[in-house]
Amino acid sequence: MSKMARLIYKLQTISSLSSSRCFSSSSLQANKVAVVLSGSGVYDGSEIHEASACLVHLSRHGAQVSIFAPDKPQLHVSNHVKGEVMEGETRNVLVESARIARGAISSLSELKADSFDAVVFPGGFGAAKNLSSFAVDGDKMSVDGEVERVIQDFKKSKKPMGFCCISPVLAAKIIPGVQVTVGQDSEQDGKWPYSGTAGAIQVMGGQHINREINEIHIDSKENVVTTPAFMCNAPVHEVYDGIGNLISTLVKMTKSS
Amino acid sequence: MSKMARLIYKLQTISSLSSSRCFSSSSLQANKVAVVLSGSGVYDGSEIHEASACLVHLSRHGAQVSIFAPDKPQLHVSNHVKGEVMEGETRNVLVESARIARGAISSLSELKADSFDAVVFPGGFGAAKNLSSFAVDGDKMSVDGEVERVIQDFKKSKKPMGFCCISPVLAAKIIPGVQVTVGQDSEQDGKWPYSGTAGAIQVMGGQHINREINEIHIDSKENVVTTPAFMCNAPVHEVYDGIGNLISTLVKMTKSS
Repeated sequence: MSKMARLIYKLQTISSLSSSRCFSSSSLQANKVAVVLSGSGVYDGSEIHEASACLVHLSRHGAQVSIFAPDKPQLHVSNHVKGEVMEGETRNVLVESARIARGAISSLSELKADSFDAVVFPGGFGAAKNLSSFAVDGDKMSVDGEVERVIQDFKKSKKPMGFCCISPVLAAKIIPGVQVTVGQDSEQDGKWPYSGTAGAIQVMGGQHINREINEIHIDSKENVVTTPAFMCNAPVHEVYDGIGNLISTLVKMTKSS
Repeated sequence: MSKMARLIYKLQTISSLSSSRCFSSSSLQANKVAVVLSGSGVYDGSEIHEASACLVHLSRHGAQVSIFAPDKPQLHVSNHVKGEVMEGETRNVLVESARIARGAISSLSELKADSFDAVVFPGGFGAAKNLSSFAVDGDKMSVDGEVERVIQDFKKSKKPMGFCCISPVLAAKIIPGVQVTVGQDSEQDGKWPYSGTAGAIQVMGGQHINREINEIHIDSKENVVTTPAFMCNAPVHEVYDGIGNLISTLVKMTKSS
């Protein structure tokens, strides 16, 4: 093998080895945090910047992160230029989520609350299409069986759970009376384009609390923390900072629980 | 249409409207910065966390960002769980890059240096597979025609260019004698798994400068700034911070050029 061929071979193969280090602290005392993805791309999967912000902030807090996603087909595949479904195309939620995880990912069926101190669900339409049926069924939605099991497990263990953007609908459906925020319950001239979601949360039995883009809401009884993220038509650095607020709070809740 | 059906309709359609705001300042004085993507996912496209970090830092600096990618097929599609090529699958670089851009993206053929103050190339194997042939041809690589035109245009206009991770190979091929960093030229027990790239840059006529993960190198003659990013086996928040260093320097160079 020539020197350059060896270089290219290494370019192809070493990535998967190095991925394990990039999201995980080597400290034995580190918090163990699970991140649940739903694909890769705002229209049919995890919102990429929300997922990345969760991972960057967890890394800065020295958390030991493991990433999970359901091993099943996506509801559909969206062309993100046209905003249209790509007819006839099928993709797998786990395989596409691995793009965000740089290959270091496991099936959601392997996620047990016993092995972790906290769990985080970034947003994106994947939470409403692949983790639940909210995008199709609204307040009549169902939740993916593995997602429901994971939320019930963390609830029983009284371990903190974080939800960004649209993903608080998952908590509202599974945890009766839980307090969550998806931002504001009125549109405010397009600043909160998905404000109708607040009403759906109320119908499903949750309590919606209005919060701004940089704010979080903590339900200290249920150990649930939520932040609006891209439910707000906001610059991406404000989404990054709101998620930073959520992650630092989640890490504190982990230490006190 | 029922109230819930209208909600879902809005969930599907308003995203594309709101995308324009999330990466762009509304200030008329804002720097206009072009970001060039190469797909979405480290193995066959743009490295997602590097691309997101570029956009978050540009947003914080109040830049007016426009995102571009070549409208052509990817070299191949990688299964990011297995690290293998998905035989028979084809995807378009522009369409997949739109996942990172939340739909607000244009063909690279529309990017003219006249309309911008600076350009940034995040890394990921896409830079070595879709923007150039480095992953296949090493120091014998060719550069995509539109990518070469864009780099030549910004060079002629003496406008600053930023390159992260593996993408400095593009500058090294196009700009004779340019000084760039891709980190270190020795592996250091796996900390710099792609260190052979430094040698390829030298063979192509560039000058490689050793830098650490949080550092940048500025070639002030050619207005080129580079940072190692995921060329280093480093935690993701250190990659985020190194790119923050690159972006703040690029914005300063824009104001002084």
